Amino acid sequence: MIAVLKRNASEADKDRVIEVIKGENFDVHPIQGVEKTIIGVLGDQDNRIKLKEKLMTMGCVEKVVVILEPYKLTSWNFKQEKTVIDLGDGVKIGGDELTVMAGPCSVESREQILKTARIVKAGGAQLLRGGAFKPRTSPYSFQGLGEEGLKYMAEAREETGLKIITELMDIEHIDVIMEYTDVIQIGARNMQNYSLLKAIGKLDKPVMLKRGMSATIKEWLLAAEYVMNEGNHDVILCERGVRTFGEETRNTMDLSSIPLVQQISHLPLIADPSHGTGRWELVTPVARAAAAVGADGIMVEVHPEPQNALSDGHQSLKPANYHLMMDELRAIHSSIHRFDAREKKIAYA
Amino acid sequence: MIAVLKRNASEADKDRVIEVIKGENFDVHPIQGVEKTIIGVLGDQDNRIKLKEKLMTMGCVEKVVVILEPYKLTSWNFKQEKTVIDLGDGVKIGGDELTVMAGPCSVESREQILKTARIVKAGGAQLLRGGAFKPRTSPYSFQGLGEEGLKYMAEAREETGLKIITELMDIEHIDVIMEYTDVIQIGARNMQNYSLLKAIGKLDKPVMLKRGMSATIKEWLLAAEYVMNEGNHDVILCERGVRTFGEETRNTMDLSSIPLVQQISHLPLIADPSHGTGRWELVTPVARAAAAVGADGIMVEVHPEPQNALSDGHQSLKPANYHLMMDELRAIHSSIHRFDAREKKIAYA
Amino acid sequence: MIAVLKRNASEADKDRVIEVIKGENFDVHPIQGVEKTIIGVLGDQDNRIKLKEKLMTMGCVEKVVVILEPYKLTSWNFKQEKTVIDLGDGVKIGGDELTVMAGPCSVESREQILKTARIVKAGGAQLLRGGAFKPRTSPYSFQGLGEEGLKYMAEAREETGLKIITELMDIEHIDVIMEYTDVIQIGARNMQNYSLLKAIGKLDKPVMLKRGMSATIKEWLLAAEYVMNEGNHDVILCERGVRTFGEETRNTMDLSSIPLVQQISHLPLIADPSHGTGRWELVTPVARAAAAVGADGIMVEVHPEPQNALSDGHQSLKPANYHLMMDELRAIHSSIHRFDAREKKIAYA
Amino acid sequence: MIAVLKRNASEADKDRVIEVIKGENFDVHPIQGVEKTIIGVLGDQDNRIKLKEKLMTMGCVEKVVVILEPYKLTSWNFKQEKTVIDLGDGVKIGGDELTVMAGPCSVESREQILKTARIVKAGGAQLLRGGAFKPRTSPYSFQGLGEEGLKYMAEAREETGLKIITELMDIEHIDVIMEYTDVIQIGARNMQNYSLLKAIGKLDKPVMLKRGMSATIKEWLLAAEYVMNEGNHDVILCERGVRTFGEETRNTMDLSSIPLVQQISHLPLIADPSHGTGRWELVTPVARAAAAVGADGIMVEVHPEPQNALSDGHQSLKPANYHLMMDELRAIHSSIHRFDAREKKIAYA
Repeated sequence: MIAVLKRNASEADKDRVIEVIKGENFDVHPIQGVEKTIIGVLGDQDNRIKLKEKLMTMGCVEKVVVILEPYKLTSWNFKQEKTVIDLGDGVKIGGDELTVMAGPCSVESREQILKTARIVKAGGAQLLRGGAFKPRTSPYSFQGLGEEGLKYMAEAREETGLKIITELMDIEHIDVIMEYTDVIQIGARNMQNYSLLKAIGKLDKPVMLKRGMSATIKEWLLAAEYVMNEGNHDVILCERGVRTFGEETRNTMDLSSIPLVQQISHLPLIADPSHGTGRWELVTPVARAAAAVGADGIMVEVHPEPQNALSDGHQSLKPANYHLMMDELRAIHSSIHRFDAREKKIAYA
Repeated sequence: MIAVLKRNASEADKDRVIEVIKGENFDVHPIQGVEKTIIGVLGDQDNRIKLKEKLMTMGCVEKVVVILEPYKLTSWNFKQEKTVIDLGDGVKIGGDELTVMAGPCSVESREQILKTARIVKAGGAQLLRGGAFKPRTSPYSFQGLGEEGLKYMAEAREETGLKIITELMDIEHIDVIMEYTDVIQIGARNMQNYSLLKAIGKLDKPVMLKRGMSATIKEWLLAAEYVMNEGNHDVILCERGVRTFGEETRNTMDLSSIPLVQQISHLPLIADPSHGTGRWELVTPVARAAAAVGADGIMVEVHPEPQNALSDGHQSLKPANYHLMMDELRAIHSSIHRFDAREKKIAYA
Repeated sequence: MIAVLKRNASEADKDRVIEVIKGENFDVHPIQGVEKTIIGVLGDQDNRIKLKEKLMTMGCVEKVVVILEPYKLTSWNFKQEKTVIDLGDGVKIGGDELTVMAGPCSVESREQILKTARIVKAGGAQLLRGGAFKPRTSPYSFQGLGEEGLKYMAEAREETGLKIITELMDIEHIDVIMEYTDVIQIGARNMQNYSLLKAIGKLDKPVMLKRGMSATIKEWLLAAEYVMNEGNHDVILCERGVRTFGEETRNTMDLSSIPLVQQISHLPLIADPSHGTGRWELVTPVARAAAAVGADGIMVEVHPEPQNALSDGHQSLKPANYHLMMDELRAIHSSIHRFDAREKKIAYA
Repeated sequence: MIAVLKRNASEADKDRVIEVIKGENFDVHPIQGVEKTIIGVLGDQDNRIKLKEKLMTMGCVEKVVVILEPYKLTSWNFKQEKTVIDLGDGVKIGGDELTVMAGPCSVESREQILKTARIVKAGGAQLLRGGAFKPRTSPYSFQGLGEEGLKYMAEAREETGLKIITELMDIEHIDVIMEYTDVIQIGARNMQNYSLLKAIGKLDKPVMLKRGMSATIKEWLLAAEYVMNEGNHDVILCERGVRTFGEETRNTMDLSSIPLVQQISHLPLIADPSHGTGRWELVTPVARAAAAVGADGIMVEVHPEPQNALSDGHQSLKPANYHLMMDELRAIHSSIHRFDAREKKIAYA
């Protein structure tokens, strides 16, 4: 940690700062510049947040720069192998293959989900997505079928062999979700719902953590730390777009977050172009871009009849477009050099 | 609702759109422009989200413009009187007086909270703020004293007569929070934690709902709808800054949101300059601005010794500065024309 | 245009609004909803901005929704063929081939630009980029070599056959820039420098218009209208990232803007991953993503020795990485279905 | 400056970094942490940007943290007295009085500007604002009356004694603007039009520099450095709102920027609530907030008949509202402790 003193800081100020730092049992390395004094601080990392806050309250301290990243378990420093999550039957997330999670926004009926499952299976997806408990901005919108929807998804898995991913919104639904799903999804709105994060951290089930609407990379990885810190290390990160001034799309896909996080973390990364754009005409191009940027997989909304969807129909692909997209994703995935986990860098950088 | 057809939409397209609208039992009012056709849609509002989604999936539809606001209970349309929340002993939120909620970020010890309570009482605040269960970005930061902290706050209330406001992070803490607090605070990170919103909607206790990190005015009011829709109409809104590209402050206070919401809603509005700026030197000027813009109250962090705070010391006021701020807030509050609830407008607009 | 009246608007209000609209010679189509009245307005588009402003000042008008896009010359409506800019010697922008513009941020010396030109030519780029007049955030940074730099670029063109693109910052430099360059670049900071846009609109030289730091799609296309309205229709658009709350990258690449603009406009689109990310490790993955999303070309910074660059070295590719990137871009470009100008849509949407 | 080496940096890496730093004639102060090495760098500030860029290209360097602010002339460090700009006849900007600049967005006619001038004078404003050359997002909007408009403003000054402020968009208009105006306004879109900034830096006339749409505090102050570096030190800064995700207002007023800049710079600060909100109902509350936050003045749009304005009528105050606002601003200004230039801090912080 580096403490920068204000230009007008006196020797006495400097001594007080040093005293505070030593009081917290850190070592002090002052560097006397011509115009400003900076103080290097070395010591116990777990205590540094407290020290930083303390220093920031001192009138003579201009700023405090933290050197070490705040995350532990998510970083390459903690684990040198890329995390690959094996769902069984050859379905892996984080491996060499591009993993596709496709399906409707919401489970609407037995017929709808079975029909969709056959389509996405035929196109080559490995997981079926679908919401049974839906977070909706308005309390007056369709909120999902609940357990009934999960039963239909399980039936679709039975028939097609697809694995299931569905969203957990609430601690009280943990048991019912655990009974049916292969991967638990945590939505963007819950990325900093710490009680929920701690609860799933105690489960023995892979979790996909969507990036919050306006979460920084740091906040996103720290949310993953909440889960991992409780013992569950099977965490997948999902970029689903961030909020910007843009008016034309639902969100703005931040695709550079994928290679950026790959440099910091061993966790697999999925991209969701459906929520990232909110417009079906943009889903395929952005899905291609996500594959090209080096994502480990794609989550995409597909509906047999988007015009009859109860939610997000406007961002769902029709079956024919979904199949065309899958062909392109395969071609792109096979034509790029991906991030090299052994080298901890973009393959050729 | 207005559906705008694409430039190249055919007569057949237009007929199909009309058919879909009528199929959902809405009335159709087409307007044939020179370059584009727009279709006015009238009918049952509760069904409109479904119709909108349906229309947005149609290739010939360029956009759908919703005319009526999505909120009901929060709006002047539902309730013509300004909501004033009476906490007893003359403490009101939303009335003619400026309500001040002051105290530390976290309850750290019995001494700290009692000492702070005496300071904030002396300065004229009506409520004591303090966190017992803390949401922290990092799982490795101080998480609060829990019920012990609430006990200390209750003791402070006993001694000073201040009312208490503290944050509820989690459904499982409802009983313990209900036992001690006068107002429940819902933090920015939980603004769209719908399970939590529904749970507090069933309680008989005032709730202060902080605006989410990047929530639009619409999303903020719809979150309040979640609470009110369950029966609890004692909702207070709190502007605490939004996330922007700004690097120098923790958030960017969106003070125009206060007069803006006053035009739409009868709910009281509080401003939190401590979280809005994240820097103690900026808290007082921004608190003054919040009073001047017409807020019903201010929530502000005060600490007897910010340099020893376990959290947010850098954005806490020292006692002397708090007292100076209070004098200014009173002077400003008494010198402005505030929003006129009867006129449903800024007094003189 | 649609005018929405406030809930409490009286019949008299409605009549006044209709009067104002008719006074500007527009036709009126009122639709009387249960809760609100909306008024459809038809007529001369050139006059609508004035009418909109007028209506927005009326206390009884809640909002005014404009139906027709504000742009003319940039839209498919004006021109049904995709714009392809032919620079001669087989170099085209907007055609079937992916056009690559590569080179240093700034021209630093004769040796540097010649050396770079040979590298980028060998990798398959068609244009050489390089700044002679540099816009720098600080007046104390290197500002470019001026005409001397242009001479070196011309020499590089002589030797390699590469076309040249360089930035015009200032009307007073038009003559010198015109003498040397094949394409004029307008930087993000000047996207709304209307005097400059009008001046280049009178020139007979292709122009690449970078998207402003926080420009909406609409503002970007309207800036292109400024150029085209003066007669110069050879405009290329360049997505170079927008400003968001993100701290880790220089900007946030908004790649969905590319298929989005392709649906509206016939102009070619280039992506600049160097400025879009500001970090060389991210340039190649984001360049691949730009090719995959359907861009007509890529502008990328390449430097023989980034560590000795006078500007932007941290976002410049080393020669070896540039060559690897080019191989990937070719593979991706050939494996996707691009936007179909005849169909005016993403090929298969 | 501080260079942070990557976790896996070798001794050889460290030596290379030190060599590069010494090669640029800086002193080196390495601090060996347990997990990372950081290197303190001391030396000639003018050369640091070059060194920083060099270091950032080195694979073993994680980040470079600059300690000293990039600005010189704008900072308290350069000038210890608050800058007060005296326009004569007792009109000052940056002094103890709140300076109000009021008038229409555009000069539309002789009658309109004379009528407005009388109104704003009667209300107590010291300057008359009005645009003769207008920057408009669309080339198809009203662009202003040009010199004719300036003549009318001069006539209004003659009659009322108000000083004049008007926008300069273009170097070629410098002579005509200089002939008429008392203060030159540079608009948000031109904040980084460096050619224009350098040109006005050579003039002997006060300049008001509006903050760019998404300019950071640093970029804003560096734009002022461009002007001051050419010799013109009479610079006024104007906060006019920044672009955020907010949909309901034209911009988001960043009022905390005012006390923030006051801590860094001796330049006077004006706030523009008309452009900051874009809605006349919000102008007065936000103007009050700007006065309360400690601004040196307010720029506000006033129009005798907003419904007939050729531009920005929707954000212009009617005369009666303007007068009410002025009374409130005076009351607020007199009731606060403002930033103390001698103490270089908020008076009582």
